[in-house]
Amino acid sequence: MNSLQFTAESPSNGVIERDFTVGEVPDVLLSPASGADRAPLVPMGHGGGAHKKHRAMAGRARLLVTGCGFHVAVIDAPGHGDRPRTARDEQEIAELRKAQAAGEPEGPIVVRYNARLAELAVPEYQATLDALQELPEIGADGPVGYVGIVMGTAIGVPLVAVEPRITAAVFGMMWPDARIEKAKQITIPIEFDMQWDNERIPREAGLALFDSFASKEKTLHANAGKHSVFPRFESDSSVRFLARHLGQAVTSPA
Amino acid sequence: MNSLQFTAESPSNGVIERDFTVGEVPDVLLSPASGADRAPLVPMGHGGGAHKKHRAMAGRARLLVTGCGFHVAVIDAPGHGDRPRTARDEQEIAELRKAQAAGEPEGPIVVRYNARLAELAVPEYQATLDALQELPEIGADGPVGYVGIVMGTAIGVPLVAVEPRITAAVFGMMWPDARIEKAKQITIPIEFDMQWDNERIPREAGLALFDSFASKEKTLHANAGKHSVFPRFESDSSVRFLARHLGQAVTSPA
Repeated sequence: MNSLQFTAESPSNGVIERDFTVGEVPDVLLSPASGADRAPLVPMGHGGGAHKKHRAMAGRARLLVTGCGFHVAVIDAPGHGDRPRTARDEQEIAELRKAQAAGEPEGPIVVRYNARLAELAVPEYQATLDALQELPEIGADGPVGYVGIVMGTAIGVPLVAVEPRITAAVFGMMWPDARIEKAKQITIPIEFDMQWDNERIPREAGLALFDSFASKEKTLHANAGKHSVFPRFESDSSVRFLARHLGQAVTSPA
Repeated sequence: MNSLQFTAESPSNGVIERDFTVGEVPDVLLSPASGADRAPLVPMGHGGGAHKKHRAMAGRARLLVTGCGFHVAVIDAPGHGDRPRTARDEQEIAELRKAQAAGEPEGPIVVRYNARLAELAVPEYQATLDALQELPEIGADGPVGYVGIVMGTAIGVPLVAVEPRITAAVFGMMWPDARIEKAKQITIPIEFDMQWDNERIPREAGLALFDSFASKEKTLHANAGKHSVFPRFESDSSVRFLARHLGQAVTSPA
């Protein structure tokens, strides 16, 4: 079993940010500077081309830490952030850029590439979860959620399908394809985000992925606008969703 | 111009409930027992077969009053609550019950009946708004929202299309048909609720009505489940939506 090594620590406005590794995988853990003895854990998967400290991740993570007192772990996906790219990563990314530049459908490339990354990432995320649950401020039997949009959904859906410790998840903005059979195995409460006028992921694709979850409680939030204008109030909404399901009060409502 | 007559008043847990009439139309106004000198107004339209004091209306209204300090006016639709039914009302209701009992599509009957009610109700709602804005605690230039699901949407969409005083609205759970041209004229922020597994209103109908609003900011909330299991947390969400757009802080978050 890979153990957790803290490599750096920096406090910032009520949040303690600790870089850590589990085996080869570099991650960051954001925790309340002062809080309960134990609090729920929310692992977070970043989007494609982003990394564990990307602005969008940091903003969402801060809302969860300061709003609910949660611990949030953002995990570098294979080939992302501080992790080396393989020749295969480089090739997939080159094909993706080429398709985007030519105005050709990027879906088939993203679906294939992210499915491969998910195969590698799911056991890594599980090992990270094992290691984090050894920490006294998290604990082995505390509530665990998940947040991951776009590539964070491509990895998160197969992760949640096999990981019984995760009991509520925020997903969104992904093609169904490689994920639909895994989504059908998922029964935990889901909040699913999509952009109604997404120019990259067709509306029907987003609706089909939402439809495929077997969850009795699932909520679709579809907002007017293109892929990149995802509204800030949906990050606030995901905090309330996780607070409701992981059993924590929202102390500083947005 | 019809003036407002208060006919009864009863305080209850921080909310003052005042029955009133404007012309022939009986309504109820719910206001904070103590609050700001002036506060935004939210007229609310009830569902078909319900009335101004129906449990679902009272619960939502209370959230808006106690959560945001809003004034909420719930208005009896023609043929509903304390208002007489016409022979035509009786006939439409009989046809609706017959179709429901036979398992035949109720959509065409509801669409036709509610379109007729909306023609009568829109000027009534506007007269009620005129009269309420004469009250010093509301005022002629204060923010105005709207909440109406199911029949409240059938009346609310044509109302909002012609009523520039309403600047944010919560709609949902209605067939598009008679409303789609009116919805295309609406540009204010919209929160739109639907049930993903609605056995009465087809999924495609709900999505089509949401799609037709011209609003730059519009959000679809679709929840797993049938028509009648509309989740309580969506009422909380609509309070936050109106607080955001009518410029009031949520003082007691749900």
